[in-house]
Amino acid sequence: MKLGVCYYPEQWPEQFWAQDAREMRELGLRMVRIGEFAWSRIEPEPGRLEWDWLDRVFAILHAEKLHIVLGTPTATPPKWLVDRYPDMLAHDEHGRPRGFGSRRHYCFSSPAYREQAARITELLAQRYGQHPALSAWQTDNEYGCHGTVLSYSQAARTAFRRWLRLRYVTIQALNEAWGNVFWSQDYNDFEQIDPPVGTVTEANPAHRLDYQRFASDEVISFNRIQVEILRNKSPGRDILHNFMGFFTGFDHHRLSKDLDVASWDSYPLGATQNFFLNEKEKQLWAETGHPDVPAFHHDLYRGMCGGRWWVMEQQPGPVNWAHWNPAPAEGMVRLWTWQAFAHGAEVVSYFRWRQVPFAQEQMHAGLQRPDRIVDQGGLEAGQVDEDLRGLGPHALAENPKHHADVALVFDYQSIWMSDIQPQGADFNAMELCFRAYSALRQIGLNVDVVSPESDFTHYSMVVLPVQMRNDEALAAKLQSTGARLVFGPRSGSKSEDFHIPSQLPPGAFNVLTGVRVTRVSSWPPGITWAISLGGRLVAASRWREDIECDADDVVGRFQDGKPAIVEKGRCLYVAAWLESEGWMHVLLDASRKAGLDPHVLPEGLRLTRRGPLQYILNFSNSPMTYGPSTENAHCLLGSREVPPRGVSIWSLGQKASTTNN
Amino acid sequence: MKLGVCYYPEQWPEQFWAQDAREMRELGLRMVRIGEFAWSRIEPEPGRLEWDWLDRVFAILHAEKLHIVLGTPTATPPKWLVDRYPDMLAHDEHGRPRGFGSRRHYCFSSPAYREQAARITELLAQRYGQHPALSAWQTDNEYGCHGTVLSYSQAARTAFRRWLRLRYVTIQALNEAWGNVFWSQDYNDFEQIDPPVGTVTEANPAHRLDYQRFASDEVISFNRIQVEILRNKSPGRDILHNFMGFFTGFDHHRLSKDLDVASWDSYPLGATQNFFLNEKEKQLWAETGHPDVPAFHHDLYRGMCGGRWWVMEQQPGPVNWAHWNPAPAEGMVRLWTWQAFAHGAEVVSYFRWRQVPFAQEQMHAGLQRPDRIVDQGGLEAGQVDEDLRGLGPHALAENPKHHADVALVFDYQSIWMSDIQPQGADFNAMELCFRAYSALRQIGLNVDVVSPESDFTHYSMVVLPVQMRNDEALAAKLQSTGARLVFGPRSGSKSEDFHIPSQLPPGAFNVLTGVRVTRVSSWPPGITWAISLGGRLVAASRWREDIECDADDVVGRFQDGKPAIVEKGRCLYVAAWLESEGWMHVLLDASRKAGLDPHVLPEGLRLTRRGPLQYILNFSNSPMTYGPSTENAHCLLGSREVPPRGVSIWSLGQKASTTNN
Amino acid sequence: MKLGVCYYPEQWPEQFWAQDAREMRELGLRMVRIGEFAWSRIEPEPGRLEWDWLDRVFAILHAEKLHIVLGTPTATPPKWLVDRYPDMLAHDEHGRPRGFGSRRHYCFSSPAYREQAARITELLAQRYGQHPALSAWQTDNEYGCHGTVLSYSQAARTAFRRWLRLRYVTIQALNEAWGNVFWSQDYNDFEQIDPPVGTVTEANPAHRLDYQRFASDEVISFNRIQVEILRNKSPGRDILHNFMGFFTGFDHHRLSKDLDVASWDSYPLGATQNFFLNEKEKQLWAETGHPDVPAFHHDLYRGMCGGRWWVMEQQPGPVNWAHWNPAPAEGMVRLWTWQAFAHGAEVVSYFRWRQVPFAQEQMHAGLQRPDRIVDQGGLEAGQVDEDLRGLGPHALAENPKHHADVALVFDYQSIWMSDIQPQGADFNAMELCFRAYSALRQIGLNVDVVSPESDFTHYSMVVLPVQMRNDEALAAKLQSTGARLVFGPRSGSKSEDFHIPSQLPPGAFNVLTGVRVTRVSSWPPGITWAISLGGRLVAASRWREDIECDADDVVGRFQDGKPAIVEKGRCLYVAAWLESEGWMHVLLDASRKAGLDPHVLPEGLRLTRRGPLQYILNFSNSPMTYGPSTENAHCLLGSREVPPRGVSIWSLGQKASTTNN
Repeated sequence: MKLGVCYYPEQWPEQFWAQDAREMRELGLRMVRIGEFAWSRIEPEPGRLEWDWLDRVFAILHAEKLHIVLGTPTATPPKWLVDRYPDMLAHDEHGRPRGFGSRRHYCFSSPAYREQAARITELLAQRYGQHPALSAWQTDNEYGCHGTVLSYSQAARTAFRRWLRLRYVTIQALNEAWGNVFWSQDYNDFEQIDPPVGTVTEANPAHRLDYQRFASDEVISFNRIQVEILRNKSPGRDILHNFMGFFTGFDHHRLSKDLDVASWDSYPLGATQNFFLNEKEKQLWAETGHPDVPAFHHDLYRGMCGGRWWVMEQQPGPVNWAHWNPAPAEGMVRLWTWQAFAHGAEVVSYFRWRQVPFAQEQMHAGLQRPDRIVDQGGLEAGQVDEDLRGLGPHALAENPKHHADVALVFDYQSIWMSDIQPQGADFNAMELCFRAYSALRQIGLNVDVVSPESDFTHYSMVVLPVQMRNDEALAAKLQSTGARLVFGPRSGSKSEDFHIPSQLPPGAFNVLTGVRVTRVSSWPPGITWAISLGGRLVAASRWREDIECDADDVVGRFQDGKPAIVEKGRCLYVAAWLESEGWMHVLLDASRKAGLDPHVLPEGLRLTRRGPLQYILNFSNSPMTYGPSTENAHCLLGSREVPPRGVSIWSLGQKASTTNN
Repeated sequence: MKLGVCYYPEQWPEQFWAQDAREMRELGLRMVRIGEFAWSRIEPEPGRLEWDWLDRVFAILHAEKLHIVLGTPTATPPKWLVDRYPDMLAHDEHGRPRGFGSRRHYCFSSPAYREQAARITELLAQRYGQHPALSAWQTDNEYGCHGTVLSYSQAARTAFRRWLRLRYVTIQALNEAWGNVFWSQDYNDFEQIDPPVGTVTEANPAHRLDYQRFASDEVISFNRIQVEILRNKSPGRDILHNFMGFFTGFDHHRLSKDLDVASWDSYPLGATQNFFLNEKEKQLWAETGHPDVPAFHHDLYRGMCGGRWWVMEQQPGPVNWAHWNPAPAEGMVRLWTWQAFAHGAEVVSYFRWRQVPFAQEQMHAGLQRPDRIVDQGGLEAGQVDEDLRGLGPHALAENPKHHADVALVFDYQSIWMSDIQPQGADFNAMELCFRAYSALRQIGLNVDVVSPESDFTHYSMVVLPVQMRNDEALAAKLQSTGARLVFGPRSGSKSEDFHIPSQLPPGAFNVLTGVRVTRVSSWPPGITWAISLGGRLVAASRWREDIECDADDVVGRFQDGKPAIVEKGRCLYVAAWLESEGWMHVLLDASRKAGLDPHVLPEGLRLTRRGPLQYILNFSNSPMTYGPSTENAHCLLGSREVPPRGVSIWSLGQKASTTNN
Repeated sequence: MKLGVCYYPEQWPEQFWAQDAREMRELGLRMVRIGEFAWSRIEPEPGRLEWDWLDRVFAILHAEKLHIVLGTPTATPPKWLVDRYPDMLAHDEHGRPRGFGSRRHYCFSSPAYREQAARITELLAQRYGQHPALSAWQTDNEYGCHGTVLSYSQAARTAFRRWLRLRYVTIQALNEAWGNVFWSQDYNDFEQIDPPVGTVTEANPAHRLDYQRFASDEVISFNRIQVEILRNKSPGRDILHNFMGFFTGFDHHRLSKDLDVASWDSYPLGATQNFFLNEKEKQLWAETGHPDVPAFHHDLYRGMCGGRWWVMEQQPGPVNWAHWNPAPAEGMVRLWTWQAFAHGAEVVSYFRWRQVPFAQEQMHAGLQRPDRIVDQGGLEAGQVDEDLRGLGPHALAENPKHHADVALVFDYQSIWMSDIQPQGADFNAMELCFRAYSALRQIGLNVDVVSPESDFTHYSMVVLPVQMRNDEALAAKLQSTGARLVFGPRSGSKSEDFHIPSQLPPGAFNVLTGVRVTRVSSWPPGITWAISLGGRLVAASRWREDIECDADDVVGRFQDGKPAIVEKGRCLYVAAWLESEGWMHVLLDASRKAGLDPHVLPEGLRLTRRGPLQYILNFSNSPMTYGPSTENAHCLLGSREVPPRGVSIWSLGQKASTTNN
């Protein structure tokens, strides 16, 4: 459990640097990320390298025993480079170049830019790769931010055709896979194929899915170029990338295979305002963020690199980029930090050291105000450092590698499939995943958000809210575990080639669930149905399926008597879009049957178990009395009285249940 | 009364074909549409024709005595053709080509594409034009779908200038007609004129109207090329095209003059979700569709080709393309089919035989599921076939050519005028037509939706909800009938050249109505006025007019005492946008005065009279007791107890009134 | 106090002209604006000038003693000119030319067009500059209308680089000013800089601000070319331009320095529908317009040219261009005219003489209907003329030059800053200004809306709702006045270079207010806080600031106890977005402390004092009893009983308070 910070010395007078470094150390920070936007200062003109200032930064930080994370500056190529290689620009869906003047103005498929990115990475690795202060590398910055995964440049088209040739070998195979007989879409040659944009009406979903896969692969291979250079020139340093929340433009599981550590950038308030939460939730959680927004991503990114993960950028105060940007309520910066540690973060690094008074992000808070006074975020970071020191050896203990009781399967390709073909305007697969996850957290369960390629043998329950891709290997693996399984609607409804499976959905999961989906309906807003579920009525909306089933039990029925939730053996299939409460009750019952011990928690309270430690996190505005009921538990931080936006930490002598006092 | 289906053998293994054909016949289907999207399989490479498979399809269908409707495949030119003639692409309003990868990617004005379309039509006609199984031709598919009437290509520009030259002869005449003195818009030469896009603010409405007329004419002349080839090479076969619902991009009346049969594609649930109905209606009719959505179009397309019309594509289950896609309630496929026959359809053909598991429309149901099991739609089609067989000679009787009691005038040019210049953001002329039509249906009247060029001598009442175009010939014709006339707001408010008539609106209709509109107002949402109408208050909103009139009677007055609905002789003028209930009461009174016998029907019940048959259609979820009161009536199908989504058919010995039991 | 009208003789048969002129005179009109859209009739082909018709127009108007305002026709260059100089077109943010077919299709930076505009201006000035009927010139028409200030043409890019070079001299200075070290945005040369569009995410706000400044300067220099020609060739005539309402695309204060008279185009109903008023207000004021929409602009434009200002275009009836276009309630055209005179207009000129039955504005009313009958607007204009004649010498008196009690500071650059960086999606600086202004009017105060460069010595109170720009000169000037000061949120929060001031906001205003803003929050809709303010609770929303202050008094506190409104000496700082009622109470208290005598007026009533005259204007639908309480007052027009949409005018013998009877 270490604290860190993102720092941009190039943006401040050199005379500030030493004092900044000292104040960082005094605040308890131990990691400092630098460099990832500094290309124009490292190489102000083609080939003229300015190392001096950066050497001095390294020296100053090193003198304060701060560990450095060095970012490759490839997210912000300077203007002279763009002018030299104008073809490096990404192109938007209308074929227009996405120009210089902000960031991420490059196409992942540009050969020229790949070469330049390799060159600057090599130069940096050569100079600092062995520096004693250097602890880790960050490749680029937030791949895909601002919708930059998909590009429609000439370079992308060329690369796409090459990618298709590798995948399908013959054009006949591609025509077959995409179903191009439909609407006379047959091709005679790979060279006839364009990206799926600018069509009169929707393009073939198989065409779109392959373009998304291709684009995801381009991100991965772009990243790999840097990773290979860094591994070679800078051995022993961790390589990581900072992913983003609710971002599914490329397959993070696959990219992470090339990394040592997964990290992500956690902005709970911005995410609460900008994503799918409803108006009421946006208001309710305006100052705290929805408690499960960070938690979901913590549990997701923990699954990327064998358990090693960081928060690379932690919101320290109000930000500038959401539709609305409230200030976090007092205590939230500390609570978010502890939440990350509770979920297993090695490092929580704040973005940024000091609010910079100019350019695009001038309204983004830092740990310090622009006038170099410590801001609220800085005070709370300092408090975490104090907390950590009070915690003693527990804080230093290696992150325990253990499995949560519940696995929630997160499959990027399924998200793409649903986004490409939602079939109802408000069918949002990411939201569906999140709602199921949040329901698990509301009943006190710990969750691993995992890839479909994971090993499921250690879980009591596996939840698949949106496993839309019909994955036979996954079906076989699930078959062989003893875990209780919960499938959401649309499971297994698309083959790899974006066909409806020949045996109808849920395809290979039919063997497990006994279900055959014969018809689907999406419904306009304002229509809901009650589902009777164990004597209780819960609401469904947006989506329902007509199913045939040889289930053992119809657990829930729609008003008209048709089956809504069916059980076969240890498998549950949910044939509708459930409102949050419905998910909670379905998962409460399922997890009890799985031998788990769920409890409905008060609104805003969250429990997280990590090894022998039990964290109690209060996201509400009211104090709560809550603690473990076991005799062996002793309190490491806080007490049974958890104040609003407070935390308490308990050491459990043995596995103990945590109950309301 | 025949049933049919749309079939795509090229999308299925050849070994399915014979069984498919047999099952079609067994289900009672007699017409099969094929071929309209098969260009890439008929001509996989330039000039290489693959007839064999299609010959076999003809043979197999013929063996089952199925009649074939062959579609020309010009809506989906293959990629090799697009690559050969890149100028054939339509261009969007920003000048960008609308590319390959879906369908309808051609510009109606492209000389190269017209030549190619003629070539493939000629080849098809030559090979199958005399085939004994061939019953009819469909030209292209859904002209104008996906906003493809208007194109801004170089070819379109050239053709537009030629069209203008023919219309105006001199540039002075054009300047005069368009009022180009305004804002110095004068032209010196036809070659200076561009399509009305990319202007800084709105283009001249006369310019826009002429572009719409031009584009409509381009569709018509494109279609005529095919018609002439087919008439020549395939005599004795009906030629038809499948129009779409609520689509007004070109003048269907004019195009239909070249056809033998008008047909349209009826998707009641998609249309209910995607068009102008309000949120409450979208919910209420989610599973049944608004009852008058199909009815309006049935009555419209019946007027196109002297009474001969089909439903070419009937929704058989959930579709894929609406914002939301619910499944039809049980019974709806049968009810829609009977509704079409009740309104006089010769053929109801379902789209499609089987749900295809790949490409863009994979979520569109068919009569069979993707796994070749008969789906709900197929079951209901089969039930209609049984119904028909039970009906005996009535089902075989030739479609009686008769006139409804009420004519509703539908003028494409008026719709264009209103769309170009709504003057209030929610003035939707198509909706206004529909609301007036629906009110007529709610009071049990049968309606012919007709062109302004029609003969009105046989009608007791003529309703003109949006006769915006000041049509002197129409005025004279109406003058000479004895029918009661009802004019909506904005009647006669624009000349052919898109000028306000010199005598002020309603222009030539002033003689009939005694009205002069001196001022119009459009109103933001939330403002309504009560109109006192025969002791009752009805609501108006969106639009009102200040009128001077020498009317005999002010039938309705706004709250402030100004006239809202005025009567002169047998003419009624409605000077406001009435809410639905207002239209119902206005038309109830007017039709009584016209000697008709209207009755307000319960919600969801519709009556349709066709020759000696009386159809009672129940779109509601409740059973209704309803039947003719005459003694001579006898029930051919169903009974006086009409179940939810059920139908009953009565033979009336003589003209009888139909009343609530 | 004179009436005028806009007239387009070229749009009517010549035989109408003499009668039109006579009827204008008879109606009491004395000024006639002509010519501003007539280029294609003055110069139908390159170099062929057609003066005859215009000579005759001059003669006919002169014969009726009508004074002519001649517009230069540069807002509507004819097609032949565009075809000759295609580079003259403005380009939109996607780089597409904004083409011919409406108006304002030119780029302010085009050298070719500047030359052409000078040529036609020179020709007009030469021919009519000394004509005895010529009273004034209008340059161009509504600069910036339809979003035409910003252009992204090649010409604009070139001019922008030149502008930057002049402003910054060295590229280092520019990099420093913009903070280009951020995200490696450094430039090596001015020639590398493009307009701030087409970037992947938001461009640097300093870059955007400079582009807005540049574009504003281009409008000003474009206008100056014409002004210099006219001053030279047509001495003694007023030069004016007609600005628009709620339009802030360029700096009107700076442009006005080149004019003799400021004028604006007043369309109260269109502005009420199309701008930021909420749904309830749009309904409430649909037929009258919000009373303060015209008043705000009257008070703004009065401040442009030393008090000389006109309404160049006064709405005479329903218009065509708003989302909804209701007809004005009876009496409104007269009331708006009197409101303009009350605020000091020299001339109120109606747009247009007669509704033209063709082209884009055919649904825009005139004083006459298309059939040459006087319309409601004409009747009311005639009534104003009668009123004026009744008023006698008061109407002829020179417009008194005096200062209102309250100055409201309006700074175009601050509006740009806020628009570029709202930080909350609904932070609308123009609305904030308007809300504060409207609150002042609701408590009966007279307001000068002034530039920050004004002299404030004569005011009792100065209100700065959105002085976002940190203006040290202004701070010093305010320091030296004795006026009570009221600052809104975000005051002084940006330096000239778009940096946060080093001493934190409100920058230089800190000395006055004692405030330091340490944190800002924007809030999603639905969140409000009560502020306790003198025993009363008022609502805030959208925005709040955390402040440190050495204030004398915390006047208002948020619910959580933090300061919301603080007072130091004679300065008040408001640290939140107040709802309207909050502004009213803040300003009621402040103005009392400033020694003013505010009274909360009934809804819809407005009082305006001008010299010795007191105007009482009733915008409501109810009669009001209201008049001055002083004994010396005598009524010049109307009476103490002011009818709905009526006006009364009182002469005050001495300064008297105006009270409810």
